[in-house]
Amino acid sequence: MELFAFMQSAVFTFWERVALWSVLGIAILGLLYAAFLTAEMLRHDKGTEEMQRISRAIRLGANAYLNRQFRAIAMLVLIIAALLYFTAGEQHIAIGRACAFLMGSLFSASVGFIGMNMAVQGNVRVAAASRTSFAKALQIAYRTGTITGMLTDGLGLLGGTLIFMLYGERAYEVLLGFGFGGTLLALFMRVGGGIYTKAADVGADLVGKLEKNIPEDDPRNAATIADNVGDNVGDCAGMAADIFESYEVTIVSAMILGWASFGHKGVIFPLLVRAIGVFSSIVGTYLVRTSEQARAAMRAIHVGYTVSALVSIIGFCLVGFYYLRFPEATALPTWISVGIVGLDMRPVWTTLVGIALAVAINFLTDYFTAPEKPPVQFIARSTQTGHATTIISGFAVGYESSVWAILLIAVSIFASSLIYAGTNPTYIAYGVAMCGIGMLTLTGNNISMDVFGPVSDNANGIGEMARLEPKARQTLADLDACGNTTKAITKGIAIGSAVIAAVSLFNAYITDIARLVGASYEQVAARLSISEPMVFIGFLIGGAIPLLFSALTIRAVGRAAFLIVQEVRRQFQDAEIWAGRRMPDYARVVSICTQEAQKELIGPGLLAVLAPVVVGLALHKEALGGFLAGIILAGQLLAVFMANAGGAWDNAKKFIEDGHYGGKGSEAHKASITGDTVGDPLKDTAGPALNPLIKVMNMVSLLIVPFVIRAEAPTPWIWIVVLVGLVGLGWAVANSKRESPAMQQWRAELATEPGAR
Amino acid sequence: MELFAFMQSAVFTFWERVALWSVLGIAILGLLYAAFLTAEMLRHDKGTEEMQRISRAIRLGANAYLNRQFRAIAMLVLIIAALLYFTAGEQHIAIGRACAFLMGSLFSASVGFIGMNMAVQGNVRVAAASRTSFAKALQIAYRTGTITGMLTDGLGLLGGTLIFMLYGERAYEVLLGFGFGGTLLALFMRVGGGIYTKAADVGADLVGKLEKNIPEDDPRNAATIADNVGDNVGDCAGMAADIFESYEVTIVSAMILGWASFGHKGVIFPLLVRAIGVFSSIVGTYLVRTSEQARAAMRAIHVGYTVSALVSIIGFCLVGFYYLRFPEATALPTWISVGIVGLDMRPVWTTLVGIALAVAINFLTDYFTAPEKPPVQFIARSTQTGHATTIISGFAVGYESSVWAILLIAVSIFASSLIYAGTNPTYIAYGVAMCGIGMLTLTGNNISMDVFGPVSDNANGIGEMARLEPKARQTLADLDACGNTTKAITKGIAIGSAVIAAVSLFNAYITDIARLVGASYEQVAARLSISEPMVFIGFLIGGAIPLLFSALTIRAVGRAAFLIVQEVRRQFQDAEIWAGRRMPDYARVVSICTQEAQKELIGPGLLAVLAPVVVGLALHKEALGGFLAGIILAGQLLAVFMANAGGAWDNAKKFIEDGHYGGKGSEAHKASITGDTVGDPLKDTAGPALNPLIKVMNMVSLLIVPFVIRAEAPTPWIWIVVLVGLVGLGWAVANSKRESPAMQQWRAELATEPGAR
Repeated sequence: MELFAFMQSAVFTFWERVALWSVLGIAILGLLYAAFLTAEMLRHDKGTEEMQRISRAIRLGANAYLNRQFRAIAMLVLIIAALLYFTAGEQHIAIGRACAFLMGSLFSASVGFIGMNMAVQGNVRVAAASRTSFAKALQIAYRTGTITGMLTDGLGLLGGTLIFMLYGERAYEVLLGFGFGGTLLALFMRVGGGIYTKAADVGADLVGKLEKNIPEDDPRNAATIADNVGDNVGDCAGMAADIFESYEVTIVSAMILGWASFGHKGVIFPLLVRAIGVFSSIVGTYLVRTSEQARAAMRAIHVGYTVSALVSIIGFCLVGFYYLRFPEATALPTWISVGIVGLDMRPVWTTLVGIALAVAINFLTDYFTAPEKPPVQFIARSTQTGHATTIISGFAVGYESSVWAILLIAVSIFASSLIYAGTNPTYIAYGVAMCGIGMLTLTGNNISMDVFGPVSDNANGIGEMARLEPKARQTLADLDACGNTTKAITKGIAIGSAVIAAVSLFNAYITDIARLVGASYEQVAARLSISEPMVFIGFLIGGAIPLLFSALTIRAVGRAAFLIVQEVRRQFQDAEIWAGRRMPDYARVVSICTQEAQKELIGPGLLAVLAPVVVGLALHKEALGGFLAGIILAGQLLAVFMANAGGAWDNAKKFIEDGHYGGKGSEAHKASITGDTVGDPLKDTAGPALNPLIKVMNMVSLLIVPFVIRAEAPTPWIWIVVLVGLVGLGWAVANSKRESPAMQQWRAELATEPGAR
Repeated sequence: MELFAFMQSAVFTFWERVALWSVLGIAILGLLYAAFLTAEMLRHDKGTEEMQRISRAIRLGANAYLNRQFRAIAMLVLIIAALLYFTAGEQHIAIGRACAFLMGSLFSASVGFIGMNMAVQGNVRVAAASRTSFAKALQIAYRTGTITGMLTDGLGLLGGTLIFMLYGERAYEVLLGFGFGGTLLALFMRVGGGIYTKAADVGADLVGKLEKNIPEDDPRNAATIADNVGDNVGDCAGMAADIFESYEVTIVSAMILGWASFGHKGVIFPLLVRAIGVFSSIVGTYLVRTSEQARAAMRAIHVGYTVSALVSIIGFCLVGFYYLRFPEATALPTWISVGIVGLDMRPVWTTLVGIALAVAINFLTDYFTAPEKPPVQFIARSTQTGHATTIISGFAVGYESSVWAILLIAVSIFASSLIYAGTNPTYIAYGVAMCGIGMLTLTGNNISMDVFGPVSDNANGIGEMARLEPKARQTLADLDACGNTTKAITKGIAIGSAVIAAVSLFNAYITDIARLVGASYEQVAARLSISEPMVFIGFLIGGAIPLLFSALTIRAVGRAAFLIVQEVRRQFQDAEIWAGRRMPDYARVVSICTQEAQKELIGPGLLAVLAPVVVGLALHKEALGGFLAGIILAGQLLAVFMANAGGAWDNAKKFIEDGHYGGKGSEAHKASITGDTVGDPLKDTAGPALNPLIKVMNMVSLLIVPFVIRAEAPTPWIWIVVLVGLVGLGWAVANSKRESPAMQQWRAELATEPGAR
């Protein structure tokens, strides 16, 4: 094949070519393993007719969502692909970048799409298995997650490796397109999914629980299915696309920086590390199992994680030793070169820092959100003095968790820099990028753990609706509790990896400017001093973006929820539905939810894409650099605060529902529900969407660097673009405050009933 | 006088010496005006015996607080003064710095002390005047505030000018001590006052309203007086010390940067601008009056503000023209040199930017917190769907307000830099400092408006407790409503000025390093690139500090409130008190409150002082630079969010209490109370304390620069200091989570009563 001509060139040794083909092989192995797991999962029993009916409804809803989502995005993706064609200079690179963008989008969408479909297939099978065996139910639920995990691993590795093999030293320019595609899709799926899931949740509860006083999962409530769909949309599709994108972006930045610093070794090594990660995830996830007596789900998952981590560490050291040191190693005894001299082993050490960071963040998140730990206990106690103290204590817990999370990241960056101390700044940046690679080594395991959450949650819901026998219900409840914990834990990794990826991208931004203006890295970096007013101004503006973005998404959830309320009320007016003799029109609620989620994501989407363009073109490269730094800092602080405060409020409520402080129905319980409801849009909509936001803004900045540099000599077209951008941003903010006529009318009605809720 | 020998030197022209003495004269004029207003205020009628009794109790409480506060701090201040002696090189500078520190502390404390005492004297007189005249009541309330305002103006100007006259070109090193003294005291008064006021408030409400079901200001409640004292402690003493300190710090940084850039002109000009500000505040505040028919309090205050602003602007231009341009101006027609060429007028333009910023921030704060404006209306509507939506809508409003506030600051910095575009970085930094000077020009008016809040609030309380006639009650209620608005508005200025002051200090930090290591400003600045890993690490750590600080103070309020609850309960057990036949022991509650507030401020205080020391010594000057930038960004975002979300929740509650959405007692009202209670510790404790925190950390960093540079060659003592620092920080965090045995017992009791609140 002519395209692979680069591979035949003298740049690579024979063994390096073997290594690259092996990486490609392992990527495909990962995908095959996903296919194998899928086939295995689909063979399991689907349970009773009733269970299948419920499951089918969820599946239909999920597909309705995806159809609309992809139709809405498809046009935008094509337009951006066309625009990207004009951002690159030469034609073959331009075509490559546009195609890579399409591939990145497609992969990101597929991970979300397939992951969600597997989850809705898996949940009913978990429910069915729970009737006979705890061990089997656990295995199905976990492996359903592993399918998505392996897909993420496989596609991420496949895309990066293929592009490198095709474009060689120009791969960097094409990889940008690949990363951007994945990131943009992830942003849309995160924001859309986040709005969807919380609108359905809040809408179902407001009419069902508050107005009609019927239980949460009552089948007459037209929003129930949408609520269940939402769990999959938000936690499976959104999360999977998000992590896929971090996985992509870290490899993109490692490859960019690796090529700049160390040539082929700098690129092939991260690919090899990733391949080892895929392999160790296969081994580790396969081992997740428990006995019928022990019923130790959490322990089994931990064992799998530990095995994967150990396999990875050993693998990294071996590859590092044989690949990185090969020519020199023969001259020295093995133990010296690996253990003591270890100079060329530095990339290995940085990946180990990354693994350590992932483990530490998991512990931290667990500490701040697990029901039995002091922070949640503190919130649970505070529920006794009312709604306000519940919220305030959540603030304290959330803020504190954010402090420790950012300190962990600072320590990892410090350690990675220390490993490269005394070398040049691109080496250090490469070290940080490799730390990101290490952090996402166990992506297969992380996604398995994450998807396990909504699968067992849905299975538990199906079990309740289908009124399964008590033993099965217990099994499902246990799995659900375990899933809640694993789901919360992986949120920490998603945010942490976004920050590390963004830091690496930031270095790529400087490298790129240096290349384009023909200056050294140091010269460009020196102009990005925080004492420079333009940098500081950009920095202040950047810091404001995550807050603005959060304000927009929070308002969007409220508005979408209101429309759901209207629709559910309308359907309840049908006496047949209210009497339970006719199935409500679930699909209609799902469709409204989907439509609204799509509509609402325009504003935040515009903000994400336009803000860096406006800042870059109007205020130039120094301000854009400060802008990115501000976003990274404020985004991380806010995202962790939201995720952990939300998780802690959620578990404080669960703790009280387990019978503490008066249990269900007590005043303490009501206060804890307030905490949980406040936390919901924070932890499931605004917070998680900040991860892709941080990266989209970095990616856009990287892509517009040539224009930003040209804008320093201002021409009319630049001011036109800036003006259009400002109008777009203004519209996004103004739009976030609009109210539909129906909503205004409802407000007016409420105002006339004193004390009405 | 030998000390003033510098003044006789050839550095200054005759007219410049005249200018300096005039500045000193105007500072003293400001103080005399404060004395005149005090005498005038004390001559007014003190009202009935009942009113005087209540007022006396508040005054006694306030004095109890101040006695303990100053006794607790005195020792610490002396120790730090001794430590400061060792930070300076030569003996006469060392003595000067230590003495200036003492003077700064004393001035800051005096502003708080006298301001609070005037407020507690003024409130009863306002209540008395309300029985005869609205106009008179307004004038007394406003002028009571003006006393503190003039004191701030006068002392701030006096200190800076005196030090400059005494030390001349070495003044910079001594001014650092002056600024630090003011800042540190302000931090203690803000944190202590903030904890005090909210602990008393929450404690009084929990027992009074919730347990005993008696009204808010029932005289049998032993915490009532403490609650009233708290308003003065937090809003008068804390706020006044805080603004005093911004006033000081901006002049310190303008003088430092002015000397470095422009020599004597650069120093004398800001002093002249300040003097004009004092003069225009005297004129403007004197004009605040309304007729008996119009009853237009807000309008009168606005007129005063506008007059002051106009007088200032005219004065700045005149002084700029005659002082800055004098030698050259004679050669050109006036209108050309002022209006068109205007090169030397640049410092004037930057001060005008500052005035514009102050006005813009006032508008912004008003928009986001005034009851009739969309944001508060949005929250008020959200109360109808429950506690959770009330909180969430407050999040959206608070975050959005923070975005606009930071954009305003970014625009001002941009404008100030633009005015100095093309010159060197210290000129630009001087421009930003002058923008800060301009922003605080109307400090006299701002403090008048701020103190007017608690004075009219207390007067209204006295009116209620003393059961005044309806007409007087209406007058007091109107003044109270107006005071709520003015008080909220000035919070924005306090935060904004803290950020501008911190940015100026940051530039002083770079200038200082450059001087000490013998490099140029540009060389030092280049090492502070955000791409530098150490800068970025410092930056992440710095960003975390405001969150940690908030978590500590929020927890402290909760703990102190609990002790008040215990004491109020104990006193209610006395049947004589419960029957209203014996006065409860108000002083005891006040004393406990004071004691706890002092104890609780140790943790946050340690954090503020030790964090920059640890970062600077362990991670060196680049990390410390990033650290300061991170604190400024995160501190500003958080402080504005807290202040405005809190203010908006507060006013949403007031709006509902005015009879909307069901009025008092409705479900919507309950939800709005939750919002208000959540907002209280944010807007009155954690948020405002962030202003001095930002500046204390900058000040400490400036003071330790010589040690930070020496620490780059690590010696054992550095590691010992770092270790001690880390232990101190660890203690502060651990201490924030302790629970007293009584508290644990109470928790246990509550846990046994299902649903107990």
